[in-house]
Amino acid sequence: MGQHKASKIVDCTIRDGGLVNNWDFSVEMVQYLYSSLNEAGVEYMEIGYKNSPRLLGGADSAGPWRFLNDDFLKKIIPQKMNTRLSALVDIGRVDENDILPRSESVLDLIRVACYSKDVDKAIDLVEKFHGMGYETTINIMALSNVMEKDLLENLAMIKDSPVDVVYVVDSFGSLDMSDIQYLVEKFKRHLPEKKLGIHAHNNMQLAFANTLTANQLGVEYLDASVYGMGRAAGNCPTELLVTHLKNPKYNLRPVIDMIEKYMVPLREKEEWGYLIPYMITGTLDQHPRSGMALRNSEDKDRFVKFYDKMTTPELVHDK
Amino acid sequence: MGQHKASKIVDCTIRDGGLVNNWDFSVEMVQYLYSSLNEAGVEYMEIGYKNSPRLLGGADSAGPWRFLNDDFLKKIIPQKMNTRLSALVDIGRVDENDILPRSESVLDLIRVACYSKDVDKAIDLVEKFHGMGYETTINIMALSNVMEKDLLENLAMIKDSPVDVVYVVDSFGSLDMSDIQYLVEKFKRHLPEKKLGIHAHNNMQLAFANTLTANQLGVEYLDASVYGMGRAAGNCPTELLVTHLKNPKYNLRPVIDMIEKYMVPLREKEEWGYLIPYMITGTLDQHPRSGMALRNSEDKDRFVKFYDKMTTPELVHDK
Repeated sequence: MGQHKASKIVDCTIRDGGLVNNWDFSVEMVQYLYSSLNEAGVEYMEIGYKNSPRLLGGADSAGPWRFLNDDFLKKIIPQKMNTRLSALVDIGRVDENDILPRSESVLDLIRVACYSKDVDKAIDLVEKFHGMGYETTINIMALSNVMEKDLLENLAMIKDSPVDVVYVVDSFGSLDMSDIQYLVEKFKRHLPEKKLGIHAHNNMQLAFANTLTANQLGVEYLDASVYGMGRAAGNCPTELLVTHLKNPKYNLRPVIDMIEKYMVPLREKEEWGYLIPYMITGTLDQHPRSGMALRNSEDKDRFVKFYDKMTTPELVHDK
Repeated sequence: MGQHKASKIVDCTIRDGGLVNNWDFSVEMVQYLYSSLNEAGVEYMEIGYKNSPRLLGGADSAGPWRFLNDDFLKKIIPQKMNTRLSALVDIGRVDENDILPRSESVLDLIRVACYSKDVDKAIDLVEKFHGMGYETTINIMALSNVMEKDLLENLAMIKDSPVDVVYVVDSFGSLDMSDIQYLVEKFKRHLPEKKLGIHAHNNMQLAFANTLTANQLGVEYLDASVYGMGRAAGNCPTELLVTHLKNPKYNLRPVIDMIEKYMVPLREKEEWGYLIPYMITGTLDQHPRSGMALRNSEDKDRFVKFYDKMTTPELVHDK
């Protein structure tokens, strides 16, 4: 299939996958993933969140990938390879004083996730990170729930910001290829100078297809995770992008090795992927949290009861 | 997404799913599926194969859905509902004397699966079934391995046959949306008077996306199976088509009920779906049989070893 020549894969296994297992990844696993992705030719690895525990009510029991610390990162990745490192921050949860200048950090890319109403705050953060030397992205979440006029306002503000890449994010996994086409064309028209990215979820088994569709339309930054690991239905699988994109530097074997060694055993303990409750939240254009609550309850396989609840308007206070 | 107005779903759960469990479905389950599909608005249910045990070396231990018998079918489905019934036959394995005239059978549709080299034989069978009153299809398998000149010869022969529907079949699950577009446009150009169908496999997580793409281009007959049950990586999930296609007669709830009641328990005993060995055979454009053999061996999770074998040309005698 046609593809943009400058495609880049951004592997989110640790960051988005951490939402599944509370970032309980061993240092050995994360090091092995970094080396595997590097060997596979993957351009970026998002190694966690750079939010501040102070702004999230304490570090609780989460693994170190939830609140990345630069000293810790330098210790575990003493030698940078070709794969660049990324961290995600959320509006209102990041303390700018926690961020070192890029020259003193192992991080290369800082991505700012926000809802449409907070794009102004995202731009403010981006300006600071940009000034510190980082590559930056703005990831506007839950686009399927944003009114056109608000989105156009967002894009107009972003247009004049220093941000490098702007993401189309299908947070609820509710979009199909024609929705992606519609959004990408809108982003391209209103942000002609910006590079674009896509972050897809697999609720309707369309994460890979939507990512390919976006790429064919010129979207360069393609989020993925190994074996699709990510919250609820998970993401576009890294292995599928690595094998499918036409670029001689990509190498499938190290990704398969990573899956065999770490992801299959992990999938036996933790759950993500195409499951009916997430298909239901996806098709209803809802956040997956109600599906995740179901899967953590005794009613985990009572899909019809869940569907009836989700389709009874007065019972849904969830969106 | 745009879709053809006359779309029809052909549920293959029993027929293709039987390749997973040797057609070991209880009569109660098949009856429940029939009633669920009818309530869901699904147009066709393929209830099995109508091959002859004599031509396959005896009925062995397979369930009754492998060698459908009209008397048996009449007994278990005494009352036809809106959902029509279909059976698949293979070239060289069907005894025409086993087929009753449609007026005496509960079957409505007979589909003939063949490889490109046997299209002449498929047309011969179709002419007979057509003469007996059945709706008919020809399903040309393994299109990704057919040379253009052979395919054009096939289509020229089919053009003048009485067959109602001609299928694009992605037997190896190796095609992406642009491949599907290429094939569908070729079929449309060379078979302007025929209706088209698609049968996709999910090796690359593209079965649903490829089916939607085909449908948007005018393909009317959409094969699917509940919870994707089918050989190896399985098929396009019926539940996704039912929820996604814009047609008020489709109803997701009975499909979810079927999944909760039968398919989740069955998936705990039997294996199908997106698994790395099938991703590997898909991306290599190979029949999944080597992946199936791996999954039935002690090496079932040794993906790298399998990948190395499959990518060493002198070790692959498989295609």
